[in-house]
Amino acid sequence: MPIALAIATLLVIVVSSYFQTIRAYPKGGGAYIVARENLGLYAGLLAAAALLVGYILTVAVSISAGVAAITSALPALYPFRVWLCLGLIAFIMLANLRGVRESGTLFSVPTYLFIFSFYLLIVVGLVRYFAGGVPVARAKAVAIPTVQPVTVFFILRAFASGCTALTGIEAISDGVPAFKPPEAVNASKTLLWMGGILTSLFLGITMLAYLYGVVPSKGETVVSELARIVFGNGPLYYLIQLATVLGLTLAANTSFADFPRLSWFLARDRFLPRQLMNLGDRLVFSNGIILLSVLSSLLVIVFHGNTHALIPLYAVGVFVSFTLSQTGMVRRWLTRREGKRWWLSAAINGLGALTTGMVMVIVAVTKFAQGAWIVVLLLPIIIAMFLEINHHYRAVAAQLSLEGVQELPSLSASKVIVPVAGVHRGVLHALQYARSISTDITAVCVDVDPAVTERVRERWPQWVSDIPLVTLPSPYRSTLEPLMDYIEQVEQNNGPDDVITVLLPEFVPARWWHHLLHNQTALLIRMVLHYRRNTVVINVPYHLEK
Amino acid sequence: MPIALAIATLLVIVVSSYFQTIRAYPKGGGAYIVARENLGLYAGLLAAAALLVGYILTVAVSISAGVAAITSALPALYPFRVWLCLGLIAFIMLANLRGVRESGTLFSVPTYLFIFSFYLLIVVGLVRYFAGGVPVARAKAVAIPTVQPVTVFFILRAFASGCTALTGIEAISDGVPAFKPPEAVNASKTLLWMGGILTSLFLGITMLAYLYGVVPSKGETVVSELARIVFGNGPLYYLIQLATVLGLTLAANTSFADFPRLSWFLARDRFLPRQLMNLGDRLVFSNGIILLSVLSSLLVIVFHGNTHALIPLYAVGVFVSFTLSQTGMVRRWLTRREGKRWWLSAAINGLGALTTGMVMVIVAVTKFAQGAWIVVLLLPIIIAMFLEINHHYRAVAAQLSLEGVQELPSLSASKVIVPVAGVHRGVLHALQYARSISTDITAVCVDVDPAVTERVRERWPQWVSDIPLVTLPSPYRSTLEPLMDYIEQVEQNNGPDDVITVLLPEFVPARWWHHLLHNQTALLIRMVLHYRRNTVVINVPYHLEK
Repeated sequence: MPIALAIATLLVIVVSSYFQTIRAYPKGGGAYIVARENLGLYAGLLAAAALLVGYILTVAVSISAGVAAITSALPALYPFRVWLCLGLIAFIMLANLRGVRESGTLFSVPTYLFIFSFYLLIVVGLVRYFAGGVPVARAKAVAIPTVQPVTVFFILRAFASGCTALTGIEAISDGVPAFKPPEAVNASKTLLWMGGILTSLFLGITMLAYLYGVVPSKGETVVSELARIVFGNGPLYYLIQLATVLGLTLAANTSFADFPRLSWFLARDRFLPRQLMNLGDRLVFSNGIILLSVLSSLLVIVFHGNTHALIPLYAVGVFVSFTLSQTGMVRRWLTRREGKRWWLSAAINGLGALTTGMVMVIVAVTKFAQGAWIVVLLLPIIIAMFLEINHHYRAVAAQLSLEGVQELPSLSASKVIVPVAGVHRGVLHALQYARSISTDITAVCVDVDPAVTERVRERWPQWVSDIPLVTLPSPYRSTLEPLMDYIEQVEQNNGPDDVITVLLPEFVPARWWHHLLHNQTALLIRMVLHYRRNTVVINVPYHLEK
Repeated sequence: MPIALAIATLLVIVVSSYFQTIRAYPKGGGAYIVARENLGLYAGLLAAAALLVGYILTVAVSISAGVAAITSALPALYPFRVWLCLGLIAFIMLANLRGVRESGTLFSVPTYLFIFSFYLLIVVGLVRYFAGGVPVARAKAVAIPTVQPVTVFFILRAFASGCTALTGIEAISDGVPAFKPPEAVNASKTLLWMGGILTSLFLGITMLAYLYGVVPSKGETVVSELARIVFGNGPLYYLIQLATVLGLTLAANTSFADFPRLSWFLARDRFLPRQLMNLGDRLVFSNGIILLSVLSSLLVIVFHGNTHALIPLYAVGVFVSFTLSQTGMVRRWLTRREGKRWWLSAAINGLGALTTGMVMVIVAVTKFAQGAWIVVLLLPIIIAMFLEINHHYRAVAAQLSLEGVQELPSLSASKVIVPVAGVHRGVLHALQYARSISTDITAVCVDVDPAVTERVRERWPQWVSDIPLVTLPSPYRSTLEPLMDYIEQVEQNNGPDDVITVLLPEFVPARWWHHLLHNQTALLIRMVLHYRRNTVVINVPYHLEK
């Protein structure tokens, strides 16, 4: 109970702090933006890295917990929990890819169901307890050897719930523009309501668990045990479990809005691949959604759907970003001194920063061996990745830039090489094209099969009199190597800036499976030449009808 | 025992029949060639289909049996039997890819070990039995409810061993040219020796099993039990098991020579993909070897390493090809009437055809429900596949043929379209190339991001004054669709035989992982245009230095 009260206090402090942030950043102020703007680039990147990790962990932890609610109600499904998790993640992913974010009504039903059924559980549980009609303590508690691990476990579980709630708060702050106008006012209202509901639910459930002496066990969740004691095995029990699953799915779903949005900010600032900026035809950041699904699914698979081990990581990550965000706000108030009561705002954010910072340090130190070290290791790696990506984009921009360019060197399709493997319509078609772009054409035939080469040499003068045919010996029956050697040789006779054009005659079969029946030599040549300097590749396809 | 004698007789008959085949086809006469030449195309394809299936099953059955010998000696490995099978198949595959077929000495040691140790087992077993020093019957036999299933099982096991031996015989006949000269004489000698050794080993082991009352059980093979009774658990027992594994590995290995060779014949005659004709730099048919490994590995995985269920399939397939081969030989003798004693040869092959044909019918009928139906279904499907592939190759050849072609229509790079996403060195580089091949160039910019498009439109006249820039609206933020629509539109103004050239400026990053940081739009455009008629694609890469 004291821990629960502490966490409730924490929730109140964080909510008040974020209240300030929403007022200051009506256009959306996530930890990344607040920290970057007020504390500098590195603090921003640190907050962003911690948040990205936090979002991935939110999905993995929420979905695992949701599936734990399912398997508590239906223990026969326990062996399939990883598949259930993956299925649930895939479902949320598809819903988000189809743009479910816009349809708010779809979400209001499960949200109200969740809030309503949990309040019901708390009220009925308290009434029954004080009426004295239910068996209070259960034998299970005896089996626990010492108090220490249980307490630790409780603290962690509590943190997990708390953190999920806190991520929701960050989500509101990050996504202010998505609210109905006046955005900042509505966002603040939502924040207050959400904070209030979460705090009261959290306190209620913890009190019930304390009163009934329920302790988490491996096969069953605390809420499931509580609901079983309070409601029996009737339909109300299943309602509670259903509400838990839906509630946790919604918790995971917030990450599906936030992760792509933060990725977009980072991609815009060139710290993540620019593909994360692509807006699909349904106006969602498809790549971010898919990336989040893949990463959280991997976590679920690696941890076999038991994600308790991830909770310390999660807590550290989330509190790092909170602390940075709040510190950024303090700095902002101190620098700007806007409004009359800037000192009050600064004090509130200062308290928030201090509290979350303390929690962060406590979790990181006490849980260092249990997994917090992973975050300590991971965050610098992610930041290094951000910086490396940024460096690459800058280098590309510099290399492509036209700054100071007076005139580009001229370039022409002077020398054309046409690899041929036979004398047929496809090849003659390609040679016609070659004739239209150059007068210096050479056909080459790699001698992989002497019988084939002989046939080509025989028929060549009959059909092509104006283009010389060079036969390349291939002692090891490779097509590619002799061709590359020949191109090299031609290039040596060229000037250093001259370009070599390789024209590939290719016939395109009528059906996709026909590809399986033909050597993919042209594809291979194209791939290798792509990485060759001063080489232009032309594909002249000849389409078969059947 | 009577069944064993019957199988031994069968072996003798088949060996004599194949003796004739080798004499008649000194250049190698597999069932496919013999049946096709003497009985027509469809008989040949039927024999080939049956043989291909047989080779795949040989590998799966032999390797599974070899691994069963390992797990009999080391029961702790039983749960890993599928992995052991896959590992063994992978090992044989790699050995064959490296061209192990040439190094005969590598194989002679295990072969001699196998023959020697099995004769030792038989001799010691018989001596001990008649000296009366070993417990004869074992309690296990009591547990069997009726005689029927055991007998059936025994027959099938016996057939399996017999068939493996028979496949070896087909292998000799198929691969006559691989022997030292005089090829036919040496192949015949080998055939006789092999037949004699296999017959005597088979009879010996069956007699021992009968005398000692050993019956196959799930965890242990017959040979393992026999060896345990005769030699105890000493080193000789492990020698026998090792010899079994090596022997069965060699049996599987014969398929690795025969499957690629038969595939080559079929690919040469255009009934299988021509890739199976490719001779690697180590002079082996790599693709055939890999295909066989993949297919037999799939069988092992599907049947969890317990391939007893495959034995009826196996028997039917093998005997189909034998019967066709022998019938083909009879037809040959009757048609040609070569040599003095052609009637004797015809009689021997006739007896072979009759015997194997009878066995085939008996197995197919009695085992129809247990899996023989799969073969009855599978063989026509494979033959249909052969014919479909053949049809495709003929259609391609006809379409590419220059038969009756007087003059090809002229073709030129008249209209060039250059998609651009920015004004930078890479684009200007590509435009230089475009200018060298055509005077009718249009640059197009798909308006996915209005800010980017605006920037391109602003900078274009500054850098490119001679080439018009067309902006394509993209309401659904797709790059591909507006571009394809535009090309369509340009084409409608063209003559039907005119070609459109799409020139793609592409920058090539310095490191492979940099690709992950850029949209692969050019790749996508290239892929889609490949399937478009009358469209030539030119790639002008601009190589980044870092």
